[in-house]
Amino acid sequence: MSRFATVRASGKQMYGAVTDTGFIALSPRFPKWPTLREVITDDGLHDLAQAAQGQPDSHANGSFTWEIPIPAPEKIICVGVNFPDRNAEYKDGQEAPPNPSLFVRFPRSFTGHEQPLIRPRASEQLDYEGEIAVVIGKGGRHIPEAEALGHIAALTLCNEGTLRDWVRHAKFNVTQGKNFDASGAMGPWIVPFTHAAQITDVALEARVNGEIRQQDRTGRMIFTVARQIAYISTFTTLVPGDIIVTGTPTGAGARMEPPQYLTPGDTVEVSAEGIGTLRNPVADEI
Amino acid sequence: MSRFATVRASGKQMYGAVTDTGFIALSPRFPKWPTLREVITDDGLHDLAQAAQGQPDSHANGSFTWEIPIPAPEKIICVGVNFPDRNAEYKDGQEAPPNPSLFVRFPRSFTGHEQPLIRPRASEQLDYEGEIAVVIGKGGRHIPEAEALGHIAALTLCNEGTLRDWVRHAKFNVTQGKNFDASGAMGPWIVPFTHAAQITDVALEARVNGEIRQQDRTGRMIFTVARQIAYISTFTTLVPGDIIVTGTPTGAGARMEPPQYLTPGDTVEVSAEGIGTLRNPVADEI
Repeated sequence: MSRFATVRASGKQMYGAVTDTGFIALSPRFPKWPTLREVITDDGLHDLAQAAQGQPDSHANGSFTWEIPIPAPEKIICVGVNFPDRNAEYKDGQEAPPNPSLFVRFPRSFTGHEQPLIRPRASEQLDYEGEIAVVIGKGGRHIPEAEALGHIAALTLCNEGTLRDWVRHAKFNVTQGKNFDASGAMGPWIVPFTHAAQITDVALEARVNGEIRQQDRTGRMIFTVARQIAYISTFTTLVPGDIIVTGTPTGAGARMEPPQYLTPGDTVEVSAEGIGTLRNPVADEI
Repeated sequence: MSRFATVRASGKQMYGAVTDTGFIALSPRFPKWPTLREVITDDGLHDLAQAAQGQPDSHANGSFTWEIPIPAPEKIICVGVNFPDRNAEYKDGQEAPPNPSLFVRFPRSFTGHEQPLIRPRASEQLDYEGEIAVVIGKGGRHIPEAEALGHIAALTLCNEGTLRDWVRHAKFNVTQGKNFDASGAMGPWIVPFTHAAQITDVALEARVNGEIRQQDRTGRMIFTVARQIAYISTFTTLVPGDIIVTGTPTGAGARMEPPQYLTPGDTVEVSAEGIGTLRNPVADEI
């Protein structure tokens, strides 16, 4: 399985292929593509895979740090309340919602694999949300649901970290609680998307200090990924490198009795079949 | 008064200075700064002003089209419900909200001055919202309110066009109703921000086909611009070129009885003292 990542080594950001023992830097060989976003725009993941074949690691594990895979997507759109039990959690008597709730996160609200999630000075209610994110390959507007999966270039994992008190800080919208710097994570890598079964019904799980907190299957989503892409492209033109974060199962810390928020020293892992595991410790904002 | 804009002429995007008779292209003379975002990052507006001095127009009015001033800001954050009568419009009995409601718009939801606002196939409820937008010059996190105005590089105008039925399309968040392609406008230009009086209490107005629909003063904002900057920087690091759209007065078409939405053939103008007038016709999505 090919895996591509963006990392930092010796102070420089680079992209390349991930191996079990380390990383094969490829960006130096493709100067026309500054980041994975441009690789994806030019449908270049095959070229990366080919260039990596038979190459030794340029960087051994431990000699680089992970960054989010697409450093500056045009858009990161997140889908809220997308698993049946999640809707029930709101206890507002509302049936399954007619359309997906959407919000936006900025890239700087995410950190890379193995980097600390930051609990900010402003809140002690840092919570996890394990999710699968899709990276758009072929852009478009008014994408028919039946063709939507053909617009995905790759998959990755997301811990859609949230400050619970700050999502209800104002009259409307969750923007601020979803956008604290480095409150979430994305990665570790992207996996090329080549067949529908990679997303239609796969297991998704989040663990805190090894304890399973969220566990579900994408087959139970209220809004399938194909439906999400079709719906979003009703209003905005999707472009290569755009990211859709597809929704989290029930079981966030805020829903436990009493609520259990993340504290420094905790480790959060998000895993999905066929993608891997995104792991992050928690640290306080300095 | 210096005014700087981003325009397109002969198929090329460029930035430069605006005169009464046309446009002085400056981007060819500053290749180190691809867009106004990089100019602002390097605090280069003075250099642009100097370079424009005494120069003839490179492009006469009518020989170029207007684009949004900062083509790709890292963030565009919009403040909702920020004038006293706007809060009352919600008739939910809630006192003035404790913190500003925030949402995000993507650059492609805005078009430039004189370009058509697009009423999409999906909705007939296109509405206007006249606002002043600030462009961040000096970035930062945890910016004290007392220093916040010092972080503004420039001002511009915004028609924060909204599809009213799509802001309530889902359980939470206004994302989709605020992000239809070219449903809003920004511009025509940016005006350098040099003293607080440019924003603290200026007149703001929106007109449809010449009829005044919104009219208020920034001095009546629930959350001042300084407060907005301080609040937003509590959770995210502001960077040069970021845009904060500061809120609209009462008087949108949705609040009229019966509601009056925009239709093709209408012209919307947003004006503010010391900035100018942003004018857009309305057209249907093709």
